[in-house]
Amino acid sequence: MVSNSVRSAPRFMHLPTFMRSPLINDRSEFDIAMVGVPYDGAVTNRPGARHGPREVRSASSMIRAIHPVTHSNPFELCRVGDAGDVPFENLYDIQVVHAEIETFFRALGDDGLMSLAIGGDHSVTLPILRALAKEGSLGLIQVDAHTDTWDSFMGSDLSHGAPFRRAVEEGLIDPSRTVQIGIRGAQNSMEGWDFSDSTGMRVLFMDELTRIGAEAAAQEARRIVGHGPTYLSFDIDGLDPAFAPGTGTPEVGGLTTVEALTLLRGLRGVQLVGADVVEVAPPFDPTGITALAGATMAYELLCLLSEQS
Amino acid sequence: MVSNSVRSAPRFMHLPTFMRSPLINDRSEFDIAMVGVPYDGAVTNRPGARHGPREVRSASSMIRAIHPVTHSNPFELCRVGDAGDVPFENLYDIQVVHAEIETFFRALGDDGLMSLAIGGDHSVTLPILRALAKEGSLGLIQVDAHTDTWDSFMGSDLSHGAPFRRAVEEGLIDPSRTVQIGIRGAQNSMEGWDFSDSTGMRVLFMDELTRIGAEAAAQEARRIVGHGPTYLSFDIDGLDPAFAPGTGTPEVGGLTTVEALTLLRGLRGVQLVGADVVEVAPPFDPTGITALAGATMAYELLCLLSEQS
Amino acid sequence: MVSNSVRSAPRFMHLPTFMRSPLINDRSEFDIAMVGVPYDGAVTNRPGARHGPREVRSASSMIRAIHPVTHSNPFELCRVGDAGDVPFENLYDIQVVHAEIETFFRALGDDGLMSLAIGGDHSVTLPILRALAKEGSLGLIQVDAHTDTWDSFMGSDLSHGAPFRRAVEEGLIDPSRTVQIGIRGAQNSMEGWDFSDSTGMRVLFMDELTRIGAEAAAQEARRIVGHGPTYLSFDIDGLDPAFAPGTGTPEVGGLTTVEALTLLRGLRGVQLVGADVVEVAPPFDPTGITALAGATMAYELLCLLSEQS
Amino acid sequence: MVSNSVRSAPRFMHLPTFMRSPLINDRSEFDIAMVGVPYDGAVTNRPGARHGPREVRSASSMIRAIHPVTHSNPFELCRVGDAGDVPFENLYDIQVVHAEIETFFRALGDDGLMSLAIGGDHSVTLPILRALAKEGSLGLIQVDAHTDTWDSFMGSDLSHGAPFRRAVEEGLIDPSRTVQIGIRGAQNSMEGWDFSDSTGMRVLFMDELTRIGAEAAAQEARRIVGHGPTYLSFDIDGLDPAFAPGTGTPEVGGLTTVEALTLLRGLRGVQLVGADVVEVAPPFDPTGITALAGATMAYELLCLLSEQS
Amino acid sequence: MVSNSVRSAPRFMHLPTFMRSPLINDRSEFDIAMVGVPYDGAVTNRPGARHGPREVRSASSMIRAIHPVTHSNPFELCRVGDAGDVPFENLYDIQVVHAEIETFFRALGDDGLMSLAIGGDHSVTLPILRALAKEGSLGLIQVDAHTDTWDSFMGSDLSHGAPFRRAVEEGLIDPSRTVQIGIRGAQNSMEGWDFSDSTGMRVLFMDELTRIGAEAAAQEARRIVGHGPTYLSFDIDGLDPAFAPGTGTPEVGGLTTVEALTLLRGLRGVQLVGADVVEVAPPFDPTGITALAGATMAYELLCLLSEQS
Amino acid sequence: MVSNSVRSAPRFMHLPTFMRSPLINDRSEFDIAMVGVPYDGAVTNRPGARHGPREVRSASSMIRAIHPVTHSNPFELCRVGDAGDVPFENLYDIQVVHAEIETFFRALGDDGLMSLAIGGDHSVTLPILRALAKEGSLGLIQVDAHTDTWDSFMGSDLSHGAPFRRAVEEGLIDPSRTVQIGIRGAQNSMEGWDFSDSTGMRVLFMDELTRIGAEAAAQEARRIVGHGPTYLSFDIDGLDPAFAPGTGTPEVGGLTTVEALTLLRGLRGVQLVGADVVEVAPPFDPTGITALAGATMAYELLCLLSEQS
Repeated sequence: MVSNSVRSAPRFMHLPTFMRSPLINDRSEFDIAMVGVPYDGAVTNRPGARHGPREVRSASSMIRAIHPVTHSNPFELCRVGDAGDVPFENLYDIQVVHAEIETFFRALGDDGLMSLAIGGDHSVTLPILRALAKEGSLGLIQVDAHTDTWDSFMGSDLSHGAPFRRAVEEGLIDPSRTVQIGIRGAQNSMEGWDFSDSTGMRVLFMDELTRIGAEAAAQEARRIVGHGPTYLSFDIDGLDPAFAPGTGTPEVGGLTTVEALTLLRGLRGVQLVGADVVEVAPPFDPTGITALAGATMAYELLCLLSEQS
Repeated sequence: MVSNSVRSAPRFMHLPTFMRSPLINDRSEFDIAMVGVPYDGAVTNRPGARHGPREVRSASSMIRAIHPVTHSNPFELCRVGDAGDVPFENLYDIQVVHAEIETFFRALGDDGLMSLAIGGDHSVTLPILRALAKEGSLGLIQVDAHTDTWDSFMGSDLSHGAPFRRAVEEGLIDPSRTVQIGIRGAQNSMEGWDFSDSTGMRVLFMDELTRIGAEAAAQEARRIVGHGPTYLSFDIDGLDPAFAPGTGTPEVGGLTTVEALTLLRGLRGVQLVGADVVEVAPPFDPTGITALAGATMAYELLCLLSEQS
Repeated sequence: MVSNSVRSAPRFMHLPTFMRSPLINDRSEFDIAMVGVPYDGAVTNRPGARHGPREVRSASSMIRAIHPVTHSNPFELCRVGDAGDVPFENLYDIQVVHAEIETFFRALGDDGLMSLAIGGDHSVTLPILRALAKEGSLGLIQVDAHTDTWDSFMGSDLSHGAPFRRAVEEGLIDPSRTVQIGIRGAQNSMEGWDFSDSTGMRVLFMDELTRIGAEAAAQEARRIVGHGPTYLSFDIDGLDPAFAPGTGTPEVGGLTTVEALTLLRGLRGVQLVGADVVEVAPPFDPTGITALAGATMAYELLCLLSEQS
Repeated sequence: MVSNSVRSAPRFMHLPTFMRSPLINDRSEFDIAMVGVPYDGAVTNRPGARHGPREVRSASSMIRAIHPVTHSNPFELCRVGDAGDVPFENLYDIQVVHAEIETFFRALGDDGLMSLAIGGDHSVTLPILRALAKEGSLGLIQVDAHTDTWDSFMGSDLSHGAPFRRAVEEGLIDPSRTVQIGIRGAQNSMEGWDFSDSTGMRVLFMDELTRIGAEAAAQEARRIVGHGPTYLSFDIDGLDPAFAPGTGTPEVGGLTTVEALTLLRGLRGVQLVGADVVEVAPPFDPTGITALAGATMAYELLCLLSEQS
Repeated sequence: MVSNSVRSAPRFMHLPTFMRSPLINDRSEFDIAMVGVPYDGAVTNRPGARHGPREVRSASSMIRAIHPVTHSNPFELCRVGDAGDVPFENLYDIQVVHAEIETFFRALGDDGLMSLAIGGDHSVTLPILRALAKEGSLGLIQVDAHTDTWDSFMGSDLSHGAPFRRAVEEGLIDPSRTVQIGIRGAQNSMEGWDFSDSTGMRVLFMDELTRIGAEAAAQEARRIVGHGPTYLSFDIDGLDPAFAPGTGTPEVGGLTTVEALTLLRGLRGVQLVGADVVEVAPPFDPTGITALAGATMAYELLCLLSEQS
Repeated sequence: MVSNSVRSAPRFMHLPTFMRSPLINDRSEFDIAMVGVPYDGAVTNRPGARHGPREVRSASSMIRAIHPVTHSNPFELCRVGDAGDVPFENLYDIQVVHAEIETFFRALGDDGLMSLAIGGDHSVTLPILRALAKEGSLGLIQVDAHTDTWDSFMGSDLSHGAPFRRAVEEGLIDPSRTVQIGIRGAQNSMEGWDFSDSTGMRVLFMDELTRIGAEAAAQEARRIVGHGPTYLSFDIDGLDPAFAPGTGTPEVGGLTTVEALTLLRGLRGVQLVGADVVEVAPPFDPTGITALAGATMAYELLCLLSEQS
């Protein structure tokens, strides 16, 4: 484990691993791996999320250990490390890239580690789910502006608008144990909303979240996913652009960070098997608050994951 | 009408008309005209809103068609086009510029089109009201940090702090059917607040809005304007600077975008005869979230307008 | 007093003193001094707050006189001036710098002026308290993401994470009359939280504030500090990074400016003896909204102070 | 032709077509087509050039008609229009995208128009060359930091580092009539430099250009390409990052804009058959000077092209 | 005079007067007045120069006293002060504003002070010339991308593209003793160039300057203006956008700062009667290098002026 | 050694060590150590250089191996690694910090490694010289806007304006073998220039460099330092602010990067014993070109160092 002295050093010092955690050499010495997935070849709009892992790592130097509300310390509950980035050998073919991601996460799982991924665009969640859903479909809690259940776009059915449609088709997630939170923004067709709806997903649109509040949304999420194994995917564009301008497809009218923290903190007890934070796009983040929000959400997810062991 | 394929193209492609709508050549083929009014010669503080139409057009490539709450599609309800910018021939004399604006909007109305204007500073609303209030004074719903009912400033009584004082004096708006929402910020005299108050406008200061919430504010707005013809003017500085830093006179402590969307969505049924979004000042908007907020508010206004026909 | 014509001039004109107030030459002509404290040598993370006074001064040109809720005018209630910056002769030794600050504020007090300080990092509050707590320990209302009651860091016990620990030890503040509002973010040890807790401070963590609301928080603050003399310290990082990105140690999930204004406005009647706004770090504030938020909070504090005389 | 009044309107007004030229509807009315190629799927480093055409169009509002040195007016010499963007139907498969580009430019040529392309990453030059080199290989003048004659990278031999290797292999360009100007920056292998060298290209490294000056470089370029048909490709990263920070692979130590203008102006008389400006990446261009440099280089190229007819 | 201790204080401290000079109360105690002219109502393109004086003042804290080449110290040669901004009472009528400027500068001259103006847009030079050319037309050295000898634009013949045409017509400057340096960029008509040419101005286009160098340009300027009284106007857009991005009408391919410094230093001996630096537009200057360049050019001009007394 | 595959990976991937070199665990396996020195507590103006090592590391992912002019490959000539940051335990006391730096570099030297330091402010060069000048004073080649031979400032004689005065006094450098290149900018006293002059340093002011050119400057530098052991210190503010805006004390009118590269490349054969690049201040570097320039200069220095072994 990283000595406290490393995490207590001034935040501008030393190489910025995720949350100043040790690099993973020997996987047997770790329980949870934080993994960078620097891929944005599947975006439909503004690219840049390939730079997400580096800047989230840098911003995560500001993250410390003991949770302000629960006083739990994930770095004591678990042995947490930084597994580096998925070592891509292809950059241009989505299918090949996805296979590389799947292989990497599958190996982590085979070695007994839970993983917390930092994207990258939202397409990367699909191969992660392929790696994790080995024993049946998973529940899904998705924080996002978009359902990402759209079909083919501009020649590919693997764009970052499609991962959860594919995941249902492949049996990776159970739509009846899926909840999508923060959805908003107009669309050019009903296709994606209809898919979520017709397969039985619980879509908690932003206007409903505003009415019922983040705590009730967390309660609803827990109700939907129940006690089975569940994956949590946090698309940073679930946050309002004021809180997360640095993303590829910002949608006005989203969650505040207070709402997001309340939501995540309300999910204790859910049986998480993995999680990710995606779509942080540093070129659109001149103040760095998006990367910092991403790092903070990742910390909350780490706390949830660390209580699983 | 623009083919769906244009609006469904990747958002970074093609010339950015407002919401990727077709340019208006033959006015008889359109019901609603979106119009750029690139004028900021009447500001009292930071200029830049002259660049508003261009950047709102660009950001509006992110706008799509079907409303996430109502599922209404303004582009199917109406024939919506981009009428370009008011073709100014004068840039330096407020009165002449205002006359050019009035002429343009009057012609649009004469040709049977409703208009949705994108400013430009708030002074441009005055000549638009002159064009629209042909048959008597209009009701007004104004979202704004400032009442803009101030008198002469630095030698002009047509500054962007004065349009609604002038509009009352000219009989363009009915103060008893006027509601001003989001007003805040200190002032050096009571002049403007007193004018609003003494003429019978309903001024819903920000602290009241915080207490009663945006839905109640919408209800109050509907109560004030009643069933008569009404204009809606959305000054982007009604939003908090965190959500809209790119404006000439930001005032801390304003509406969130969620509150603004809630407010606008609560106005269905009001008899709108025109609307505008003003004061987006791109030079102060490095992340582009102000232009995107402006485009999104314009979409909501378009939805309201499209339900009038 | 500054003539109204100065404060009513266009905001981009003239030398930006704090809120366009006159420079203080003869202290006997003033009641309240606004003071710049451009020092950031005690930060633990990102420096830059030394540039705070200049940019807050510049942003404060946007501040006007009459309060939008109370209609009180601090510039009429009191004679308010800009005392310039503390004239440092040392930049590198925290102890010497703190002594210079103490001397300056002590002299202001001796001359009968109340002071409103603009930092600078949070360490500067310690010498100000030394100057003000002449007749016994003060109550403290602190808006902040961090308790700043930590002990020695990297070789100094005077860092900006430590002022209130030192202030308790020195008897400058009464922990039983101290309330810390907006506290959040993980920590590497319990040290600071434990100090606040064990000495009897009321720590109102951010999650509690979210639940009870800003008005109740103000009420609680009034209850804690009671009727005795009280100091108010506003660390701009109490605000969420969306509202105040320009600060050295941003923490996701903080107060909105609406909440902060509500909180401050709820403190009328508290017997304030001085106040500050600290940690505005302009190099991280490309849109200037942090400096504007700092200036606006300073105006609210000025209103509270001006009602003391 | 666009009326002078359009090009003389204030630069912030109206829809920003390239250099405020008319949109091309009927190709028979035009001699030269400016074309946007918003594709950056072949970059090896920072994406963003897909946003190039839009921002170069916007910046090109600052371009006017009469050349300051030659007094020639390309808009009088030729009928110049904006052909819009290549209407992609695929975004994710380089080969398919390249085919779409080739088809579009081939059709322009078949209709008798010369084309001036605005990228997009440098890979787009390959399909343009395929469209133009119908009657034999072309000469090439390339301004660039990199030779772009590298082989396969991360699974593709069509990356933006490879177009001129492919173009030689396909017989599209004649290496003995190819000159590469501004080349610099370290490399991890000699592969690309060796290819240029061994095929007989004239590589004018930046240090040589510094020694001989831009006029001599132009002379050398004219000598190399001689009197045959020649293509000119201007990669904006040929400029130094101080002049063009907004690009995907900046290399320190490049051309100044004065040198670039001198170079281009020295190429009069070369028999140009087409040209492009590529690799403007707006997300990395907060001041917009890269887009403006790109627009200005495009204007110089337009002047050269317009003298061909 | 300001004590050395003020100018030697850390640059981030104290109120930023121009070059940390004392404010002018009693004009009889000063020889040279630096004056802010925060007006940009005459621009044809991007506004923002109204913020120039404030940001140049702030950047000028970095200026010190002794010249690195000549070792002359303008603050010892002359009594130099900051006269504040022209106290406008009108913001919207160019003619009235110009009259206010003229009055202010005329009074300074009547009181025996030379003036160094910081704009503001280039239109402000016209009223300054009206104030200074009391005893006959002046010579003019103008560093600029544009000749600013254009006629009426968008309804005004006083735009920032017109001052030197008007100045010739009014007999304020002698065209045969006028040199314009750095001119470049295409134009939509020959009007302005023709005016400069036909009235006998020496227009030193940028391509000539590149060929002959800045020292020769200075020599030529000295030759043209001879020994008579001469005004020097430095439009910051004379610099290349890489060196001065923050201006309203940037033109690619301009002077480097080294060239500008060489040019100005080559003008010793010219009989200067006044000078200005104009068109610094801070909203387009995120790094502040334009304001710093403006402050540095102003220092060089101050050195030249101080050697006149 | 790092495998080529790491350095050839896409530049946005993996942890950004300096130039993607391996972290040094066992010093016996390395010849040259690149070291981060994240300290800026000795600046006199704008802080931020503490963030320099992290951002230079990140930018240095763009650096590759084979030199474009010499074709030498420092990573083949030597075993080059990243030694991490100096592990400070004190942040607030310059003397203690300097002692920590000295200890670290001394140990590197004792272990047989040459070092290439990345600052941090320029004060850090003093303790590095203390570590390296074990066997007598060194020659010095300094690229800088300032001589940094000033005496005490604001209470410290160890500020970043003083290191070379101290180094002469301590016998660490031989002033007769010292050359300072790029010096410019006004000063408030002659103190520093006089010190350099009177001790016999060769000060090559910027105006001389402009006249003689960078190659001649390199020749002069080689002449001054001769064949003895020499240290090279590159202050990034030696570059013009257009090329390096991100620094604490920018001075207009500096070297271009082409000049800097020419200068450094002209120093082959000098007997270098160590080198540094200092004063990159990322908070003032929104485009990242300063960090990239710093990384590129460091690469050139690495090439020079690697030829020593």
